[in-house]
Amino acid sequence: MPAGRVTSFPAHTAQDPGFEARVRASFARQRFMATIGARLLRVGAGEADIELAVREELTQQHGFLHAGALAAAADSACGYAALSLMPAGAAVLSVEFKVNLLAPAAGDRVVARGRVIRAGKTVTVCWGDVTAYAGDTERLVATMVGTMMTVRDRGLTD
Amino acid sequence: MPAGRVTSFPAHTAQDPGFEARVRASFARQRFMATIGARLLRVGAGEADIELAVREELTQQHGFLHAGALAAAADSACGYAALSLMPAGAAVLSVEFKVNLLAPAAGDRVVARGRVIRAGKTVTVCWGDVTAYAGDTERLVATMVGTMMTVRDRGLTD
Amino acid sequence: MPAGRVTSFPAHTAQDPGFEARVRASFARQRFMATIGARLLRVGAGEADIELAVREELTQQHGFLHAGALAAAADSACGYAALSLMPAGAAVLSVEFKVNLLAPAAGDRVVARGRVIRAGKTVTVCWGDVTAYAGDTERLVATMVGTMMTVRDRGLTD
Amino acid sequence: MPAGRVTSFPAHTAQDPGFEARVRASFARQRFMATIGARLLRVGAGEADIELAVREELTQQHGFLHAGALAAAADSACGYAALSLMPAGAAVLSVEFKVNLLAPAAGDRVVARGRVIRAGKTVTVCWGDVTAYAGDTERLVATMVGTMMTVRDRGLTD
Repeated sequence: MPAGRVTSFPAHTAQDPGFEARVRASFARQRFMATIGARLLRVGAGEADIELAVREELTQQHGFLHAGALAAAADSACGYAALSLMPAGAAVLSVEFKVNLLAPAAGDRVVARGRVIRAGKTVTVCWGDVTAYAGDTERLVATMVGTMMTVRDRGLTD
Repeated sequence: MPAGRVTSFPAHTAQDPGFEARVRASFARQRFMATIGARLLRVGAGEADIELAVREELTQQHGFLHAGALAAAADSACGYAALSLMPAGAAVLSVEFKVNLLAPAAGDRVVARGRVIRAGKTVTVCWGDVTAYAGDTERLVATMVGTMMTVRDRGLTD
Repeated sequence: MPAGRVTSFPAHTAQDPGFEARVRASFARQRFMATIGARLLRVGAGEADIELAVREELTQQHGFLHAGALAAAADSACGYAALSLMPAGAAVLSVEFKVNLLAPAAGDRVVARGRVIRAGKTVTVCWGDVTAYAGDTERLVATMVGTMMTVRDRGLTD
Repeated sequence: MPAGRVTSFPAHTAQDPGFEARVRASFARQRFMATIGARLLRVGAGEADIELAVREELTQQHGFLHAGALAAAADSACGYAALSLMPAGAAVLSVEFKVNLLAPAAGDRVVARGRVIRAGKTVTVCWGDVTAYAGDTERLVATMVGTMMTVRDRGLTD
């Protein structure tokens, strides 16, 4: 565990036993995740981890990962953490998120971890963090707190 | 002007008369902007506009633009709005930003506009908004407020 | 108008013609607004302005207004801007807000202005700004973007 | 520990061995903390806990604690967590914070806990959470992530 990662979250119970397959199928439809080379690692009840290889195509002007690429991975991690707790048939939309950039993101790869802080009927609040790995070292490079909404009956499915 | 765009900002004066060339050169080094197909439109003192064509490669699971793609464009727009007011030799880094998603982003293209609300010696606060255009219609789809930092003497240049 | 205030917002139409009385009655029930000496100035459709006299009781350690006092006034201004557009019988709750502090808040009084950026059925996004007045001068000291929720059938009324 | 509290944070080492006295003296100068009846409980390196008794004077229109009162306590907790790691002679100012409201805040008292996520030379990022206590039960009611700035040579001391 990297110094600085915030790691204790409540345990959650999923309403839909098929949540993992549902999350993985939805992730597979996110074309932007493929475009940035993101991979969905672990999915748990209220949890989702997404890995992003550090590639030149994702950098900002100083050669670090662009904050937008970090935000994309963390937003999807938070969104899928939230979706894992929603009932079958619901869809998830991001309402808002804030990203704090803690250190320049470089290395081999980053992992964005999304965790549900509180799941409500309509609104779910998630924590996200992004850790960069370079060989044996790791560093917390960004945090997110975001609000996700459970959407029904708008013609959207996840 | 789209209903809903927030548009009045203070007028700023750039310290560096060469700000526009500096901003454009830095934007050209942002590989991630090329990856998502973003184009730097207008650069003014305290202002930068970035256009993103709506393409399938940028979508989330429902076919809308991924919030991360919107955040990337808005973050760069805010960062370059801030950089335009910084002295030559300084570099810009994002400290934090919050994005509120107002409506699903679809259409032909979106424009992210960054505007400096307050420029300080170390910290600059920016407003960003993202408007989606579909034929003759337009819609505000996201807002951002972000903090940018002026960096000197860390081996970074912009 | 102070340099730096963001001032253009969409025009809104209230669903409930009695919105002003409803907002004023709800404000009068906010004991915390009385505690900090806040006064509700103007109420419009999608707009609310709250004034706070600068008093020692509201200061932080350097003698400026505490960020929490600014946040309280701006949160109420945003919440009542949102409530003004909600149907009669609904109640408003804050989901989240971010405050950026732009300058130390001092002077005679501050005015927090809340404006609706986008009103949705469930979620309303608002802009808030806080301007400090000292004699003839004024200064934008804080901004807020916040999310407000329309609540029905939870035993809450506004 | 309440279900839902995020509790693992990095261990920090204070530069100034007299940090606790410095934090307590600064807190005692925050008139607004006295106004809302806040008490500084624990101070550690990178940590500060502030207690607020639930009183009618602090409520919003439905009788819950006003989000501004929660924000005030959490902002001070985050600011003092940050100050504890700053060198003697430095002062702390809030740059920005976001608050997510998770549940209505009621009960006997709330405790706002501030923890440093990352301490930099200029900018420190903190986590804050607010837990409400009612008899034997407790509930996480709000979270904060905020940015604090180390200020020197502006005539401010803490």
